[in-house]
Order: sequence, then structure tokens, then C-alpha cells
Amino acid sequence: MTQDTDRFDELIATIQNKLYTAVVSDVLDRHGYLDQAMDAGIRPIERGMRVVGRAHTVLATDIYERQANPYVKEIASIDAVTPGSCVVASTHRSTRTCFWGELLSTATRARGGAGCIIDGYTRDSDAIIEMGFPVFSTGFKPVDSAPRSMVVDYGCPIECGGVRVNPGDVVFGDFDGIVVIPIDVLPDVVAEAVKKVESENLTRDMLRQGYLLREVYDKYGVL
Amino acid sequence: MTQDTDRFDELIATIQNKLYTAVVSDVLDRHGYLDQAMDAGIRPIERGMRVVGRAHTVLATDIYERQANPYVKEIASIDAVTPGSCVVASTHRSTRTCFWGELLSTATRARGGAGCIIDGYTRDSDAIIEMGFPVFSTGFKPVDSAPRSMVVDYGCPIECGGVRVNPGDVVFGDFDGIVVIPIDVLPDVVAEAVKKVESENLTRDMLRQGYLLREVYDKYGVL
Amino acid sequence: MTQDTDRFDELIATIQNKLYTAVVSDVLDRHGYLDQAMDAGIRPIERGMRVVGRAHTVLATDIYERQANPYVKEIASIDAVTPGSCVVASTHRSTRTCFWGELLSTATRARGGAGCIIDGYTRDSDAIIEMGFPVFSTGFKPVDSAPRSMVVDYGCPIECGGVRVNPGDVVFGDFDGIVVIPIDVLPDVVAEAVKKVESENLTRDMLRQGYLLREVYDKYGVL
Amino acid sequence: MTQDTDRFDELIATIQNKLYTAVVSDVLDRHGYLDQAMDAGIRPIERGMRVVGRAHTVLATDIYERQANPYVKEIASIDAVTPGSCVVASTHRSTRTCFWGELLSTATRARGGAGCIIDGYTRDSDAIIEMGFPVFSTGFKPVDSAPRSMVVDYGCPIECGGVRVNPGDVVFGDFDGIVVIPIDVLPDVVAEAVKKVESENLTRDMLRQGYLLREVYDKYGVL
Amino acid sequence: MTQDTDRFDELIATIQNKLYTAVVSDVLDRHGYLDQAMDAGIRPIERGMRVVGRAHTVLATDIYERQANPYVKEIASIDAVTPGSCVVASTHRSTRTCFWGELLSTATRARGGAGCIIDGYTRDSDAIIEMGFPVFSTGFKPVDSAPRSMVVDYGCPIECGGVRVNPGDVVFGDFDGIVVIPIDVLPDVVAEAVKKVESENLTRDMLRQGYLLREVYDKYGVL
Amino acid sequence: MTQDTDRFDELIATIQNKLYTAVVSDVLDRHGYLDQAMDAGIRPIERGMRVVGRAHTVLATDIYERQANPYVKEIASIDAVTPGSCVVASTHRSTRTCFWGELLSTATRARGGAGCIIDGYTRDSDAIIEMGFPVFSTGFKPVDSAPRSMVVDYGCPIECGGVRVNPGDVVFGDFDGIVVIPIDVLPDVVAEAVKKVESENLTRDMLRQGYLLREVYDKYGVL
Repeated sequence: MTQDTDRFDELIATIQNKLYTAVVSDVLDRHGYLDQAMDAGIRPIERGMRVVGRAHTVLATDIYERQANPYVKEIASIDAVTPGSCVVASTHRSTRTCFWGELLSTATRARGGAGCIIDGYTRDSDAIIEMGFPVFSTGFKPVDSAPRSMVVDYGCPIECGGVRVNPGDVVFGDFDGIVVIPIDVLPDVVAEAVKKVESENLTRDMLRQGYLLREVYDKYGVL
Repeated sequence: MTQDTDRFDELIATIQNKLYTAVVSDVLDRHGYLDQAMDAGIRPIERGMRVVGRAHTVLATDIYERQANPYVKEIASIDAVTPGSCVVASTHRSTRTCFWGELLSTATRARGGAGCIIDGYTRDSDAIIEMGFPVFSTGFKPVDSAPRSMVVDYGCPIECGGVRVNPGDVVFGDFDGIVVIPIDVLPDVVAEAVKKVESENLTRDMLRQGYLLREVYDKYGVL
Repeated sequence: MTQDTDRFDELIATIQNKLYTAVVSDVLDRHGYLDQAMDAGIRPIERGMRVVGRAHTVLATDIYERQANPYVKEIASIDAVTPGSCVVASTHRSTRTCFWGELLSTATRARGGAGCIIDGYTRDSDAIIEMGFPVFSTGFKPVDSAPRSMVVDYGCPIECGGVRVNPGDVVFGDFDGIVVIPIDVLPDVVAEAVKKVESENLTRDMLRQGYLLREVYDKYGVL
Repeated sequence: MTQDTDRFDELIATIQNKLYTAVVSDVLDRHGYLDQAMDAGIRPIERGMRVVGRAHTVLATDIYERQANPYVKEIASIDAVTPGSCVVASTHRSTRTCFWGELLSTATRARGGAGCIIDGYTRDSDAIIEMGFPVFSTGFKPVDSAPRSMVVDYGCPIECGGVRVNPGDVVFGDFDGIVVIPIDVLPDVVAEAVKKVESENLTRDMLRQGYLLREVYDKYGVL
Repeated sequence: MTQDTDRFDELIATIQNKLYTAVVSDVLDRHGYLDQAMDAGIRPIERGMRVVGRAHTVLATDIYERQANPYVKEIASIDAVTPGSCVVASTHRSTRTCFWGELLSTATRARGGAGCIIDGYTRDSDAIIEMGFPVFSTGFKPVDSAPRSMVVDYGCPIECGGVRVNPGDVVFGDFDGIVVIPIDVLPDVVAEAVKKVESENLTRDMLRQGYLLREVYDKYGVL
Repeated sequence: MTQDTDRFDELIATIQNKLYTAVVSDVLDRHGYLDQAMDAGIRPIERGMRVVGRAHTVLATDIYERQANPYVKEIASIDAVTPGSCVVASTHRSTRTCFWGELLSTATRARGGAGCIIDGYTRDSDAIIEMGFPVFSTGFKPVDSAPRSMVVDYGCPIECGGVRVNPGDVVFGDFDGIVVIPIDVLPDVVAEAVKKVESENLTRDMLRQGYLLREVYDKYGVL
């Protein structure tokens, strides 16, 4: 099991250091996974932010009255974060609440969490950026979640940005967007993506030298 | 009256120097004002822009023919700007016109205006950013307003970003968004927000030290 | 013909060096062209990007099955780019595919193309920004076009961002947006825009000195 | 208390037999309630359907995995319907699930419920129309709720169609839409609305006789 | 002038009795008018409603405070309706107000107006349908316009449903939608449309007899 | 093969005569097909319309210039309709063109086609309704397709209303919406759906007799 963990950490490190979402998406296409890229509306809150980790899923819903214990499940969901995971939260694209903020970022990092991807808003963005904690959101709103939404469940399958995310899937985000890598194909996808990065260098070089796309494609069979 | 003005200026300075929109929104929640944050689509045109001031409201509407005197009310509305106010303009979320630009920014600043918040587009964004004049808008379009929209009224109640804004309300914007503070609760809201900033430091410290959210919440009763 | 080309290149250089989209849009208004600014959703992928060039139009459509030769027309459309042109691509605002990326940017630049304007997504944004190749898009998605869309035609009239673009029209983009200049009025528009830039300096100076908008407008008759 | 109930039933009967939503909305305006009409997207599933009753609120959320006991709260929420009430359900405008259908209509009617208003879809529409059971929805989708959404709470404050609905408020729907009447002003609103219906008859008669709107307005001071 | 009026009335009668919007749109296409059909969101409030008349344009805007004399321009705009005209009102697609209703329908008919086309809501729909007065709207809302919108101008160029409408253009609506016929081409368009109706009968007959579309198109050169 | 065809026709007849989309969707859920119901925006153009048939897919795209031979692929796509099929057309939700109309309906029926489902507009709706030819569309627009769109392919996989449709899948539409039945599970789905219709009768009867949903669910284990 230690070996498995080490192997997993190595894969994550390879993604973090050598890959980008576009090449991972291309390899997922070849494996028949065509719907793994989240909606373009979920963006890193700062240029340069990248995140990769096992999905720690959270499901929230809008409410219209402050609950007696508003934060019970929300607190539990964040305290359950484990090292190397990334919070992936569905608010059903709520434009009413703001689920994420600096305190949840601080708590997540303290548990070893790698970042947060949410189909809703964040706040405390200046502080989060200063922390260097990667957050991908649909925007910003300065409101508290307590009277506006509550956590319904966590560690369950969700949809985020139009993609089904199962707990344990690997999520990977950079400036081009976010891809969800099903855990079963992770090793193959990483290995093939590393190779594709290399072959793209050849294609790029030919184009820079002035060859036509037609010539490059005829030679390498890929774009 | 001088005392009142001084007191008001002091409150504005406190907001400008010590507060952020999220903490102000939290305090407004406690006072029962739950709908004071504008839609997330209204964004500062540059990171780091902040604005606070009394709302100087303007109401515009799309038109389809250049008027005989296209700028009459528009000119009057900007010439009526007073020191310490912030233009808050409703175009009814128009995607056709562009009400704001460099000249209006220059004229507003010359009258002592603090900035502009608009549920529509701006142009001349490079020049405005160079001026360091804070503008919050729904985006950019390089078109003139004259044949596309006209000012209907100013100094009247409007809605901007889904929030009712009465002339004299205080508007406050930063990277997280914009909150509207009703004038009646301004002193209380500022005082309580200053205190909340301090208490949040304690919570943050505990989390950084590795305490669970559960422990922090049990101790301070807030997140 | 050489003279014509020189004259054209001079006009393009004037736009690139002395003008901005807002002043060009104002002059187009005077000529009765009121619908030449693209939708505000098409944005430069980095602040500071500017592009001007003859429109090299491309028309794509979403598909749901990888074609036998997926890139035939796409390759032809990019290999047909000529120096001084700018790719203007319509995907019908697709949120499914991602037509643009680094390789097409590299190939376009190798043919002398000035940039790309697209009513859809791009990927490889980090690499493109590093190249300094101006791309205006509706956002980012890390997916390949091959199983998601195909080029239907190029060098044909299209609509992009709500504006009709004929091959050969001049497109001009900066941080305020994108304007399409019909080729027939290009010389007049450029000449008048240069003059308008100068007159705006006078207006701006008066406003900075504290004159009212009313006084400035009465003197110069323009805003 | 019996007297109160009788009085309440009488008010409901007056609304049902003599009033329409437009006149009730006008009277609510006069009382300062300007935001009581639901979004125009919630429509009766058949022309001629009218409903009036005390709001029996239900709050649902989308989910992405069939629950162990999918219908527990859903069943409880409908079994709790009381005579003279109208189900008002918020799905947060879900386009994924379909919360309502024939069986819930049958069960609601069996408990004495008057109808259903939902910011989501219904199914079994032919059967429901045949039953003559009034349903107001945002449309139709033939899918089961069990693997797509679950009831979170009922008998709580909700928002439906953009209007806050407290349990016990009176909801009233006809072909023009749906208004929510706060329980406190119900007797006054009904009494004034009955009078306004009469005065509108006079206005209408004058207009039919050919008088100008100007003349009618000068005479009656209302439109 | 009487002759002209007679001729005009004859053309209107021909449209009313013999034509439908699709055939008129086809003929407008041939004349190079490709953008004369309004958005599909503007629908007759009842199946079977048809309207044709000279456009009597009205321009309204949302407001957020009841005006001192809320109905001044609204009253004037309707009292100015002339026989054979059709009200065409732009509310800028407002979802907040409801500009139209039974009293305005009654007043318009009393002045000889043929109907109303509006890019906003109507109310009193049951009464209007009973009157048999054709109204084309984007939906229904039971609210009064007085505290929500006001008429800004009338008899001016507007846009309605995405189409520019000049006062005096002829508007024609049926179940397929609404087309705007520029007054200059009216006689030609009507004449050609009458002929096209006849030729379509031939095409339809061949198809009913089982001929292939290919054969029919080869014979008549039209679909 | 005749046996197969007979068996297939029998299944289609069973769907047409005994089933409705909701019960089919429920059975598809049990088989793990959770995304087979099209978006709620595609509606029958008249109440009571039902359609069932093998999908005859057509893929169209918007264009901005009339083609030399505008109807070549369009004609071919309709002339290829076979008895018992139903045209399923993707226009990528175009709001610009109108692909369907009376002549295509007539030609489709002449070839034995059962109806048309389109994620776009139709025209000639009165004539189509009179024909009793079932059309499911997103609305109506009276414009010709020739200068606005063209057929790209047919008999290929498409997406329509958010559901992947492969040629040969069975599509079934009624007033609740449209479901796509993959051909492999057709016999099982039909058989199970017939049984489910019967069991729902028992549930409905108990509810009518006044039993609680709780009691009914405890007894039958289904809702």
C-alpha cells in the first residue's frame, strides 16, 4: 500500500511538474473520455494558479433561512480533507451564496489539501491570492454562506462544471481550465501525456521553421 | 453640520483603510440586510481597485436614434457630482451602449468624485487605469453612448447589480464585489466591522496552527 | 499595385501606432456604421494585446463524431493565411469545442498572420501569451477540436461577435474590444480618427483644469 | 378559531371567484409590496387553470446519486399537506430533475391540497390536466426525481420564481402569473381588490365609448 | 392622397387575407432584407391571432420609483394611435414591468388600432383574448407599469425583437412570428408574395404525389 | 429479417399505443441510462402530438451567405427518409435560421417518415398542424433556411436537446418531452415499461382512496 501511495504521489508530481490540461484532455479523448473538461466559466482566481489532487467532493444547496447550526456539515466536510486532496464543490452554479473564502482555504491547507474547485463564488480573494492557495471559481461575491446555503453531503458523486466527479478522481486545473481524470486510467493517461508533450515539440519546431500545417500533419499525423 | 461631515468622512476613511467588502456584508447580514451585494458580473476593471463613497445615482436607457441634444442630461448628471460621492449608474444591463469612459472619469474626478460603478460597459480602459480612477463595470465596449442610450434621470433611486441604491447610500467596492450600505446603519456597521476584522485574526491563527474548524467554531462561535 | 499595398500597410501602421478602438468606433458612427463593434464577450487573453489586420475568415461547426480526415479544411484554412491578415473565426459561439491553440498560432505567425479573433475558446494560453501572439477569444477550454468541431469553409462572409465580417475588412482589437472597418471607408476612417485623437486632448485638458462638462461641450461641441 | 377559519375560507373563496392576479398585484403595490409577482417563466400547464391557497413550502436540491431511501422527505412533505393549502416547491430552477407528477398530484388532492406551484418541471401532464389539478411549472421533463434530486426541507421559508414565500402566505395564480400575498395584509388586500375590480369597469366603459385615455385618467385618476 | 390611402388599405387587406409571414419573409430575402423577422420569443398570446398594420412605435424604460405623473407619456402615446396602426413597443426586453393590458387594448381599439407587438409582458390576458384583440408579447406578468417603467418617447425609431422598426413600417404577425416590411418595398413585396403562394401550391402537390424533393426542386427551382 | 422488422414494428406500435415518455424514462433509469431525455425547450407544436420512430439524423450549421446550390444536402437528407423513421435535426440550437417547414413535412410524410424533432425553429406551423404531422421544435420563426444555414451531414451521430442520438436509436415524444431509446435495450425497455404502467395503476388507486404516500410506498416500494 505504501508502494501504491508512493506511485500515486509520483503520478501527481508528474502532472504538477510536466503536464498541462490540454495534453491530458487529448489523451483522455483517445481513451474515449470526451466529457472530462469542466465549463469554461470556472476560472483560476489568479493567473499562474495550478492545482492537482484527489477530488474531495462537497455538495451544497441554497437555503432561505439561517439554520440552527448553520455550519455543522460544512465544518465536517472541511475537517475531513486529507493530504493531497482537492476540494471540488458543487453549489449548482449558485449566484446567491458564496461558499468559499479565506478561512476555508486556511483550514483546507492546514489539513494538507491542495486547493479548491467550485462551481460558485469565492470571497476574501486578496487574502487567498496572498496565501498562494489555488482556487478555481465562477467569480466573486462578498457574502457569507450561513443564511444563503448549506452543505448537504460530502464524499459523494457530484457534478461540477458539467462533469461528473467521483470521490477519488484526480482533478487537474491550470489557466486553460480543469480536467477530471478517472482514477482507473490515471497511470496510462499520465504516461501517454508525457510522451505527447515531447512529440508536440517536434511539430512546433517544424511550424516555426515555416513548414505548412499540411506538411507537418503529413509527417507526424497529429496536430 | 461640520461635525456631521467630519464624522462621515471619518467613517469613509475607516472603510477605505481598514475594511473589506466581505466583513461589511457579514455585519449587514446581522442587521437583517441580506440583499446588499451586487451581482458578481460587475467587476473592477483592474485588480487592486477599491472605491467607497456616497452614491450619486444615474439612470440611463437605450435609444435607437441620436437625440437632438444627446448629452444634455448626461452632462448635467456628471456636473452635479459632489466631493466624496461615487457615480452609480444603471443602464439596465445594456449590452448595446457604453455609458462610461475617460472623459467622464476625468470630469468626475475634477468634481471630487471617488469612482464609478455601472451595470454596463466602459471604454478607454487603458487611460482610466493609468489615471488610477476606480471603475467597476460589466465589461468593455468601444462605442459612444450618443446614438445608443441617454440619461433619463439622476439623483433618483435605482437598481444596480440587483441591489436598490438610494441617493446618499454608501457604496463600497473591492476585488470581492460591491456592497451598498444604507445610510442609517452606516456608523453601526463600520464600528462592528472593525471589531469583526480583529476577531477573524484569532480564528485564522488557530486554523493556521492546525486546529480543526470544529474546534475553532466551538471556541469562537463564528466562522 | 505596390503603391496600393504600401498605402494599405501605412494605414495599418497608423491604426497600430496611433489609434484605439473607441476613436475608430466614433468615426464609424459618423459614417453611419453603427454595428461594427463585436460583443463584449470576446476578450484579449492578456492585457496589452492589440491586433490589426485584414480579416481572414474561417467558419466552423460543432460535430459529434471524429471525421475520417478531421483536419483537412482546418489545415487548408490556416495554410492560406497571408501576411498582414488576422484570422477571424466563427464557431457560432460554441461552448463545446476549442478551435484555437498554440500550434495554430505558431502556424499563423509563420505565414505572417497578425493574430486571431474567435467567438469561441482557445487553449495553450500560457504558450500563446509567451509567444506574444494576440488572441481574442470568449474564454478557454483545454479540449481538442478534432472530435468536436470541423471547419466548414474559409474566406467567406461570417458573423463574429454579432458583426458581419467580409474577407478583406480590417479588424482592430485592443482592451476595449474589437471593431470591424469596412474596406471601402478605411482611408477616411483612419484620417478622421487621427484628427479626433488630437481634439480629444483639448477636451481632456479643459476637464482636468476643472471646467464643467457643460462648458467643455459648449466650446468644442463634442464629448 | 372556527370563526377565524371561516373568515379565512371566505377570503380564499372571494379571491377564487371574484379576483384576478393583476388587481391583487395593484393593491399589493399600494401597500408597498412591489416584489410579490413570480417570474414569468412559471406558467399554468393549461389555459384556464387557477389556484389559490396557503403556501405549503417544499425545498429540493439536485443530487447525483440515488439515495438509500430516496423518497423519505419527499413522502413526508406531501403527506403533510393540509386542506386548502397549495404546494409551493423550490428546486432552484433545476433543469435536471422533474419534481412533480401525477402521483404527487393525486396524493396532494387526497389531502385536500389545492394545487402546485414549482420553479421546475412537471411530468404526467396529460393525466394531471385530465384530473383538473392546477399545476404551475417552468415546463415539462419526463424524468424521475429519485436519482436527480431530493427534498431537503419543507414548511420552511423558500424563494420561488424570485419571490420569498413564507409558510402560510397565500399564493394565487391565474393565466397572468402568480402573486404571493403576505398573510398579514390578506383581509385588506382582498377588500380593496374587490373595490378596484368595480372601479375598473367604469374606466373600461368610458374607453369603449371612445373617450381618450387622457380624459378617463383625468376623471378617475387611475388606469 | 385618397387614392394612396385606398391603395395602402388594399395592400394591408391582401396581407391580412391572403398571406402569411413565411412567404413575406422569403420575398424580403430576395430584396436583400434578411433581418426583418423578430426574435422567436415574441409570441401571440393565443393561437390564431394575426395582426397587420403601420407601426406606431413606443419606447419605455424601467424605473425604480413611481413618477409624479406616471402615465403622462404613456397616455399620450396611446391617445396618438391612428386607425390601421399597430402599437410596437420596446421595453428593452424588461422582465420587471408589464407595459400592456386590457385598458390599453381597449383604448387602442377605440382609436382604430389593430393590435400590439411588445418585447415585454402583457397582463389581463383573459380579457384581451375575449376581446379578440391581437397581442404579441414575450409573456405575462400581473404587475402595473406605474412604479416599474415609464414611456420615454413614441413615434421614434426603435428596436423590437432585434429588428429596427421605423414609424410607418408595416408589421405583420401570425403564429410563425412577426416580420417588419419597410414601407418603400411594401407594394412589390405584397405582389410577389401573392405569386409565391400560388407557386408553392404546385410544389406541395408534387410532394404529396410522392415526388422526391430533388425532382420538385429540379422542376421549379424553389423550395 | 422480415421477422425482425415485424418485431420492431410491433415494439413501435406498443410504444405508440400503450406507453408515455415518463414511464419509458423510468425504465431507462433502471438500465443505467440517465441522460436520455431531451432539454425541456423542445416542445410539440400542438398539444396532443406524439411521435415515435427510428432516428433519421440531420446536422445543420448556420452560414452567412447563400450557397451556390443551397439545398443540395438538405434535399438529399430528406429524400433519404425511410418509412417508420423520425427526422432528428441538430441546428446547434440556432436562433438565426428556421430549418423546418411545411414542404419538408410533406416530403417526409410522403417517404413514410413519422415526424420531426429539431433543436431549432419551424415555420408554416398552421399548415403542419392541419396536416397532423408531429413536429417538436424550440419555437417558430418565419424565415427561409437557404441564406442562413445549410445541412452539413445526415445519418451521422448528433446531439439534440443535450442527448446523443445515433442513427437507428428510437426517439419517442409526447407532451412531457422526448426520450431517446438506444436500440440495444429497446425490447427490454418496452416490455418493462408495459408492466410498470400496470403497477402504477395500483399505486394511483390507493392514493385516490386516501392512503398516505408513506403507506403506498411501504406497500409497493415504488412511486
